Parts: sequence; C-alpha cells; structure tokens
Amino acid sequence: MQPPTWDLDLKFDFMDEHRAHPHKKISLKNIPTETEGPFEGKEHARAFTARAVADIQALQYRTFVEGKQSLLVVLQALDAGGKDGLIRKVLGRMNPQGCRTFPFKVPTSEELAHDFLWRIHAATPAAGKVSIFNRSHYEDVLIARVNDLVAKSVWKDRYKQINDFEDLLVQRGTKIVKIYLHISPGEQLERFKKRLDNPAKHWKLNAGDYATRERWGDYREAYEDVFEKCNSKHTPWYLIPADKKWYRDASVAAIIRKTFEEMDPQLPAVDVDVEEIRKLYERESAEQKD
Amino acid sequence: MQPPTWDLDLKFDFMDEHRAHPHKKISLKNIPTETEGPFEGKEHARAFTARAVADIQALQYRTFVEGKQSLLVVLQALDAGGKDGLIRKVLGRMNPQGCRTFPFKVPTSEELAHDFLWRIHAATPAAGKVSIFNRSHYEDVLIARVNDLVAKSVWKDRYKQINDFEDLLVQRGTKIVKIYLHISPGEQLERFKKRLDNPAKHWKLNAGDYATRERWGDYREAYEDVFEKCNSKHTPWYLIPADKKWYRDASVAAIIRKTFEEMDPQLPAVDVDVEEIRKLYERESAEQKD
Repeated sequence: MQPPTWDLDLKFDFMDEHRAHPHKKISLKNIPTETEGPFEGKEHARAFTARAVADIQALQYRTFVEGKQSLLVVLQALDAGGKDGLIRKVLGRMNPQGCRTFPFKVPTSEELAHDFLWRIHAATPAAGKVSIFNRSHYEDVLIARVNDLVAKSVWKDRYKQINDFEDLLVQRGTKIVKIYLHISPGEQLERFKKRLDNPAKHWKLNAGDYATRERWGDYREAYEDVFEKCNSKHTPWYLIPADKKWYRDASVAAIIRKTFEEMDPQLPAVDVDVEEIRKLYERESAEQKD
Repeated sequence: MQPPTWDLDLKFDFMDEHRAHPHKKISLKNIPTETEGPFEGKEHARAFTARAVADIQALQYRTFVEGKQSLLVVLQALDAGGKDGLIRKVLGRMNPQGCRTFPFKVPTSEELAHDFLWRIHAATPAAGKVSIFNRSHYEDVLIARVNDLVAKSVWKDRYKQINDFEDLLVQRGTKIVKIYLHISPGEQLERFKKRLDNPAKHWKLNAGDYATRERWGDYREAYEDVFEKCNSKHTPWYLIPADKKWYRDASVAAIIRKTFEEMDPQLPAVDVDVEEIRKLYERESAEQKD
C-alpha cells in the first residue's frame, strides 16, 4: 500500500491564526486549547512538521552565515504544557553551533543580587545566532506575582522594563517570537497522571505540581496581563492550542519558519577569488596524478 | 520491494578498533583514512547510525536525570575533516537542554589575557550535562606550535598542563572522549573543490586553507605528539577513518553510545509518594466527572 501523499503547502496562516492581538486585553478562556487546524489528522501534521523543520534548518544556516540578524524564541507554559517536547521535536533540531537553549530555573543567589533582566540579557543571541528560552523573564511577572515573591510595586514596574529591554534587542537586529503553549486543566491532569505510570518521569514530580493547579486562575490572570502589556507589533505572542502535541509541533514549526522567511537572510559576498582558488586546486590535483 | 533488514547488533568493537594505544608513539601514516568496517555499505551504516543516535538520546536523558556524571566530547580535525557534519548528524542530536556545543575560535583578547585553559574550563559540563568541543585546548599545542604563536618553552609545558586538567575533570565524574577525524590530503582537496561549486559554502573559503595544506607534515607531527603525550586510560583518543562520511558518523555514534553504556546512568530514587499523588489525581478526575 502506498503511503498517502499529504498536501504540505498549506494556505493556512498559522501566524495570523494564533497571534495575540497587540496591546489588547484577551481572555484565555476564549482561546481554544485544542484544534486540528488545516490538518487531516496526526500523520498529516507530522509530515508537515518534518518538512518545516528541514526548511528551518536551511534558513538557520543562512542566518548563521549572514551573521547579522538574530532570533530569540521565548517559550512559556504552565507545568506539563509541553515545552520540553516542543524543544526536543522542533526547536532543538536547529544546528547547536548556532542555537542555544537556556532553561531558566529558580534564580541563584548571584542572579538575585542583580536586576531580574541581568541573567536574561547574558543569554540573548549574538548576530547570526538563535537563543531559545525555556521559561524566561516573564516568570518575573508570573510566578513572582502569583506567589508574592516580590512586592506588587516591584512587579508592576517590570512590564515597562521588559518592553524597553525587548525594544533594545529588536533595534539591534533581533527578531523576537514569544510562544505560549495553552493547555486545559483536564489535559494537564492527564499528563500528570501519565508521569505517575512512567518511572523515568518520576524525577519531574514534586509537591508543588498540585499547588500550581490550585492557582490556575491567578496564573491565567497574570498571563492575560502579559499578553496585553508586553505585546507590540515587533514583540509578538502566539497562543498555541497545545492539548494535541502534533498540532503544537506543527503550528510552532510553521511560525518559526515564517519568521525566518521574514528575516530573509542573505549569503554574504565573498572576498576571495573563487576562480583563482579553483586553478590552484586543479593544478595540485594534476600534480598528484603525475 | 521490501527494504533490506540490516543487522544492527554488530559484534564489531569500534572502541577497540579505533583507540589510540595509551602513552605510545603512533604514526598517522599507518592509520587508515578509509574503511567500511563491518558494514555492507552506506545504507547499512546509516541504519546503524540512526539506531545508535536513538540509543544515545535515551542514555543522555538518563544521565541528565541522574545528575551525577558528565560527558565531554573533544573533536579535532584538519580543515574539511568533517567536524560540522558529524555535529549536525550525530553529536548535535542530543537534547540541547542537557548538551551544549562550544566552537572554539581564535581566542579573544580577554581570553588571551588568561592562561590557555581558562576559557576551556568555563565550558566543561556540569553534573548531568554533555559538552561538545569543536576544536579545543589541543589547538594550543597544534596551531600554536605549527605557526609559532608561542615559544617552544611555552607549548612544551602544555602537555602536562592538559593532562593535569583532564585528570581533574575525570576525578570529578566527567567521562572524556577525544575524537580525531582522520582524512587523507586527497580527500581534503576534493572537499575544498566541492566548496567552490556551492555558493552557500563560499563563506568557508579563506586564503589560509591552502597554507594549512602546505604544513600537513608539521600538523601530523604535532598530532602524533598529542596522541602519545595526552592519552591515558581515562582520557582516550579515537582515530576515526573519516574519508567516508557514513563510516565516520556510524563509528563515532557507536563509540559515544558505548561510552554512555559504560557510564551506566541510574534513575534516582524519588522522594515523593507516588501512590499518594495518584489518589489525589484520581479524586480530582472523579470530581470533574460529577
């Protein structure tokens, strides 16, 4: 039996579909956590993702060689939202010589002795490079706010500080893409339960998992503020329906590919004389044959 | 037509085959740059590599979760030796959250203001992590020696400094694997010529390429000294016949897999009560259904 030949040149605009409207209050309750988009099912989406990842690899190579622009991907989600899976299957497939993943954890004492953007700034991508943030400076207006880690007067100032910081990056030539993986409370519970059945995942268990679930409403509110306050034309948030892993992977791959296409990296002019070098090599080849 | 089913459980010991004998003078001229090893051809080797990479990914995950041991892969070769391809196809396929690639270039002025191991030490893997060095501290006894970048009295001392440094890492719990990709002058010339035909590779061209070819003998001598002086039981060098890319990828994948197997990472005991958590989740699921 022949495998089906899928249409991989979809006319569907994933960016437009999932872009959170800039500067506008959104209600996460009205954003779906599950969709099949333009796909005929899981296998179709996986074939689409494989092609998109290959395109991303080629575009990343050109960006690296061009050596001018950078890409910063910010990844946020509640626990079990699928960040690690997305990195393993899509984002982490870029060439590691030009792409680095930063998992931001609880700040160290040295990091806490600086402003909250200090460790973030150090991780931003140089010209030609890509940085992927697994969690980010947004935790400083999410968990820090929900769990009262700092006073309200402190976290309230951070939205503008974040915007000023991201503008600096954009003006230097860094493209910013911010991804929120949106799952339902029911899906999170299912994923937590699956971890219990897999001993290799038990290290991920901790008593805080359940506490976070109880603060779901507070997190939703904090995220909604982020999507309103830190979301300009050049610093977009995409809200990805992530209950279906294959839709999550496909839609993010499509958005990253489109972002690279918009960057349109160009191979630089070469300052050596290719034909001169060719003659040199041909002569050497001929000598070896003598 | 059915695709052939290859034997992927080969009895061939790639480590033993390619290990440079510790503390012994070797002559690179006697080491083959081309072999097919136990493979029936390219497709067989590629199937083997795919399986080995999947095994490496699983073992890397266990090492990450265990959080005790580290792996350091040092990669050295002459130009066009295939380091970038090997990283793209094998080494760089590890999960980027636990694995980082460090391309060491010409030292910056800040790096030159320190001892030669300063920037290297900063890049060594933490517990649970993997570092891949694309070029390394060995350049400080290779290019630095061949091109007289430092006095002989300086580079002569470095062999012992390197050994002491690597011993420190090993004693902390870092496994070290050093890979030399061994190609012939003729194969290098072919690869240089191919670059001329591919505009996307022209950025790699530089006038130094040819100069390096003219110092081939000096480099060989410098490498032979490295393999004799910096090569103990716990800091092994593997000399990989790398004219055939598919053999290079397969043999290095086999060696990295075996290294992880020797590390034998263990999932840690969990300090939460899995059954208690299960009850909590089951109760919540039941409540949602009410």
